[in-house]
Amino acid sequence: MASPRVLVYGGKGALGCVIVDHFKSQNWWVASIDMRENEGADVNITVDVTASLLEQEAAVSKQVDQVLDGSKLDAVLCVAGGWAGGNAASDEFVKNYDMMTKQSAWTSVIAAHVAALHLKEGGALVLTGAQPAVGGTAGMIGYGMAKASVHQLVKSLAADNSGLPSKSFVGAILPVTMDTPMNRKFMPDADHTTWTSLPYVAELLMKWSTDKERPDNGSLVQLFTKNNNTSLVNA
Amino acid sequence: MASPRVLVYGGKGALGCVIVDHFKSQNWWVASIDMRENEGADVNITVDVTASLLEQEAAVSKQVDQVLDGSKLDAVLCVAGGWAGGNAASDEFVKNYDMMTKQSAWTSVIAAHVAALHLKEGGALVLTGAQPAVGGTAGMIGYGMAKASVHQLVKSLAADNSGLPSKSFVGAILPVTMDTPMNRKFMPDADHTTWTSLPYVAELLMKWSTDKERPDNGSLVQLFTKNNNTSLVNA
Repeated sequence: MASPRVLVYGGKGALGCVIVDHFKSQNWWVASIDMRENEGADVNITVDVTASLLEQEAAVSKQVDQVLDGSKLDAVLCVAGGWAGGNAASDEFVKNYDMMTKQSAWTSVIAAHVAALHLKEGGALVLTGAQPAVGGTAGMIGYGMAKASVHQLVKSLAADNSGLPSKSFVGAILPVTMDTPMNRKFMPDADHTTWTSLPYVAELLMKWSTDKERPDNGSLVQLFTKNNNTSLVNA
Repeated sequence: MASPRVLVYGGKGALGCVIVDHFKSQNWWVASIDMRENEGADVNITVDVTASLLEQEAAVSKQVDQVLDGSKLDAVLCVAGGWAGGNAASDEFVKNYDMMTKQSAWTSVIAAHVAALHLKEGGALVLTGAQPAVGGTAGMIGYGMAKASVHQLVKSLAADNSGLPSKSFVGAILPVTMDTPMNRKFMPDADHTTWTSLPYVAELLMKWSTDKERPDNGSLVQLFTKNNNTSLVNA
């Protein structure tokens, strides 16, 4: 039997690397899309993130067509993203809105289009939102706007005639804070027992990708972590 | 007493023109921001909509600084926007997401920044969302994403330390269908008694701008019209 196939958008980021390794360890065929190559992946699709959205989409779509050569994907996981702050009065506000939109919304939009064209029936598409963006985020307005657009994308994709293949699953993980090296570096004194572990998230996405314990279609799944234990709560 | 001052982003659009005329008729000083000049406005700030977000923001901010010359605005109303469809499988999906983001989210972000810097204490900032984007919008995904990001922006701006001046009001109107010439042209056989009239919206924004009948700060106000009668329902 052929290996199942996953495409990881943001496959060279902190979470993406853990996901690529985890899926490889379970004998999946793994394609990574990122600015830089992930040597652990079977194939790499690199993106020029300074290009326009339409240029990035065209480049990704062309390469995905080539590497898949007609075969279907079992899962598309978009974990690209970043963080930047700023309220409406901040000099950085507009710039950071722009950056957050590119990092979170553009990647999610391209991932959704790729999933519509290449996901198998019953496959999984998982995007990355953010728990705080369920409400207002005055100190990080651009971040909240970009993530809220991803949340709404998930609701649209879960509705009838969204363009996704039949019986497919779409959902989003909404982390509060993930336990990444970068967050450890910038928040050394935070309570790390409330941060969500990357291997936990990788295993969660593996379950959903293999049609185990999937929540309702279109779920926005908040990841609340306490005492190193994560609970899943639909927004 | 000096005339109150309003800045209308999208002041040459169908709704924008009606707002400009209505505020002028009530002796307001009116600045219009749009691609094209509105001759009814006191001042026009024109924007090159093919420029990048940062370029548009810089051009708008510079011209707003010049025309205000230190005076404050009583209201900032952003009614720029457009419509385009497409589900995730559509060839137009990514392009239309891009266009909708530029037309609705970029203008709202710039309007929010201008309001943070130039609105008076107790002034009003009103943005334009969309009633359908409260849920999923499978047939017009880019439109829904852009409008959802505007909805979340309103929630952020209404929170503490958002950068808006103290006691200011921020809200959004969430129309279903507005009774514009363009909608009449493309949907001649629709039931026009369920469409919201532009003069009604202009008068609503006048009330909020003069601190009358303002809903709770941060409200997303759905405009439901039936038998030519519009009710306001918070989302």
